[in-house]
Amino acid sequence: MATKNLAAWACHLNPGDLPSTVKHAAVRSLYNYLGCAIGGSRHPAVEKAYATFEPFFGASSSTIYGHGRKNRTDAQHASLLNGIASHVHDYDDTHLATIIHPTGPVASALLAYAEYRGSISGEDLLCALVAGIEASCKVGLAVWPSHYDIGWHIMSSTGSIGAAVGVGKLLELNEEQMAHAIGLAAVQVIGLREMFGSDTKSFHPGRAAQSGLMAALMAEKGYTSSLQALEAKRGWANVVAGGGTPKLDHYIAELGKKWEIEANAFKPFPCGISKGLAVGEIQRVEVRVHPLVIELTSKRKPKDGLEGPAQHSDATVTDPNVVSIRDIVEATPNEDVGADEAYLRIHFADGQTLANHVKHAVGSLEKPMTDEQLTEKFLDQTTLVLGKAKAVAASNIAWAVAEGPDVAGMLRDL
Amino acid sequence: MATKNLAAWACHLNPGDLPSTVKHAAVRSLYNYLGCAIGGSRHPAVEKAYATFEPFFGASSSTIYGHGRKNRTDAQHASLLNGIASHVHDYDDTHLATIIHPTGPVASALLAYAEYRGSISGEDLLCALVAGIEASCKVGLAVWPSHYDIGWHIMSSTGSIGAAVGVGKLLELNEEQMAHAIGLAAVQVIGLREMFGSDTKSFHPGRAAQSGLMAALMAEKGYTSSLQALEAKRGWANVVAGGGTPKLDHYIAELGKKWEIEANAFKPFPCGISKGLAVGEIQRVEVRVHPLVIELTSKRKPKDGLEGPAQHSDATVTDPNVVSIRDIVEATPNEDVGADEAYLRIHFADGQTLANHVKHAVGSLEKPMTDEQLTEKFLDQTTLVLGKAKAVAASNIAWAVAEGPDVAGMLRDL
Repeated sequence: MATKNLAAWACHLNPGDLPSTVKHAAVRSLYNYLGCAIGGSRHPAVEKAYATFEPFFGASSSTIYGHGRKNRTDAQHASLLNGIASHVHDYDDTHLATIIHPTGPVASALLAYAEYRGSISGEDLLCALVAGIEASCKVGLAVWPSHYDIGWHIMSSTGSIGAAVGVGKLLELNEEQMAHAIGLAAVQVIGLREMFGSDTKSFHPGRAAQSGLMAALMAEKGYTSSLQALEAKRGWANVVAGGGTPKLDHYIAELGKKWEIEANAFKPFPCGISKGLAVGEIQRVEVRVHPLVIELTSKRKPKDGLEGPAQHSDATVTDPNVVSIRDIVEATPNEDVGADEAYLRIHFADGQTLANHVKHAVGSLEKPMTDEQLTEKFLDQTTLVLGKAKAVAASNIAWAVAEGPDVAGMLRDL
Repeated sequence: MATKNLAAWACHLNPGDLPSTVKHAAVRSLYNYLGCAIGGSRHPAVEKAYATFEPFFGASSSTIYGHGRKNRTDAQHASLLNGIASHVHDYDDTHLATIIHPTGPVASALLAYAEYRGSISGEDLLCALVAGIEASCKVGLAVWPSHYDIGWHIMSSTGSIGAAVGVGKLLELNEEQMAHAIGLAAVQVIGLREMFGSDTKSFHPGRAAQSGLMAALMAEKGYTSSLQALEAKRGWANVVAGGGTPKLDHYIAELGKKWEIEANAFKPFPCGISKGLAVGEIQRVEVRVHPLVIELTSKRKPKDGLEGPAQHSDATVTDPNVVSIRDIVEATPNEDVGADEAYLRIHFADGQTLANHVKHAVGSLEKPMTDEQLTEKFLDQTTLVLGKAKAVAASNIAWAVAEGPDVAGMLRDL
């Protein structure tokens, strides 16, 4: 019943059902998403995708963020390109329990469709965004951690489902159509961890957005899939979690009771690693962290920005100062250290040492970024693309997009 | 090295390398594909997909088979819609060792692209088709049977890879680009067996075609994935075969030595079940078959044509005579019976019985359909859509499409 129950919950979710904390979390998620999408819009991965798909563009309806009114495309390609841009700097949000970055696929689909269709209120958009994010995270929890361990990029493998649920809400699908939309999204399992460090990593959420968008639209036209797509013997959860026992029923039953979007955190820095140490006098840096941190950040000799901390340009990654620090860091994995925790000891040339213990990184749930910090991050990301004045204007729009009767009018200026 | 080796083999395959038996098999596969695509072009699943995607169509370049010159679309959507149509009647080819239907995804991508680009010779098209089919079947063999057993629809989960390799050849990608194209296709794993009996089953090869097409085009623009996409610890084979030991190296090493397209068979009837029995006097039918036959055909009360033998219209599936026969068939699974073998015993009202043993079904490798039988099948499928005269013309084109300097000119009339 997981598929039908998810569909029924999503269909009946109303804006009035959202607690104010959930609404605020959704506004922040959307705002952070738009900053990431604009900030990533000039990345070579986006440019290459744009060049590939441009000959196939349909009638323009939707904004490619960072390009504004001057360069729009159809909703399918907008969802794809914005989805790529939103993740390409690895600067997006994180649902910490699953390490899903939930907003990218869902918002990329929703906003592209909202512009295509027009007359979608901010209130309905937020409700659809919450439905999609909850869907992605709940099905993600059901297959976590075996699904991720096997090698799936969980943000996109769950993202198409979330995107379908979100767009399905804007389409006002009935429960059966919504279940078919979930099924159509569930057969498009996108994203392998092997691609980390390459352009394809950010293709994953883009394609998930596009797949979910079209799944919902196909279901609206009566395209059928399965009403047990998630839980069937050969349905999504069993197939993609390698035979692990799915906990689908448990997590689907939590919908509307425990809101995953409240556990969505924002990265103050890509990879969560700070910067700004004085370089010359440092001899050695010892770091003790959770093993996953080593795996996700351990490319000691990245060739370009994608293989290194994604915030950095290719030039920065190969900067001699940066390289010299990288070469003297000794990271030790330790299961007892929390995923957002770090023990740090710096050894200086004169024999002195400096130790620090970060219990929770900034941007963790225990120490969330404030709205002001999110704004600072947004301006940081977008100024590089838009210049200062337009970045400030974009920030104002992005904070306000969930208000008012028609989101389309606002998005056109991003 | 499997990914690089596959890429290198595909890049260096020339039309002159194809044995005449392989060429003939490719011509037959292409011919059969076109009959299926035209024959399926009016199916409701295609119509619903058409209605969904039409608002997003880009500039027309490529034929939607069965619609001819009057209704064309861009290459992306043509590959998708033709891919759906080619499989919707379950009448397509079968690589028996993996039960992959290999031509649908590969040919849908290749032909749509050939029309978009123009100036693709029949010879180059056939070579690309062979490369794509070999790629799909070899990676399919490497993960067979665990991949299928887990629940993947193996025709589409391997089809995007085959389509990328085929289009990559037409693009004359270099080895590294080809490897990236394979990786981009490999992260889009499409198709769950749970969808059998629904519209989504035929969406699988359509989406695989489109995904493979765009993967090759992205790689041409420099989009990067991984050069170990197939064999890496968290690459395609390990992730989608549930930890089964991949036999990738073995099968990739066979490329060009053992041609899988020669083991590609054609179905004389959808589901391989004959028709035309006298109904009234039959009391009971005993059938002894391989267990897989039961699983794939055992919907005793199909609601529509998709759940029943796909050749049949919804009206036929619910026809009282058909239902009455269906209700008196007793099928017994037996592991000792071959997959294309059947023992049949018919009990008549007067006490007489009639027994038969079919060692190899028509359309099996041991008893392949002749070119004349393929033509008959093509005319059967296409006359319903095009009328007799146009069906004959289409058949002539479909047999000749692999000849001549530019396939695009011929495809426009299908």
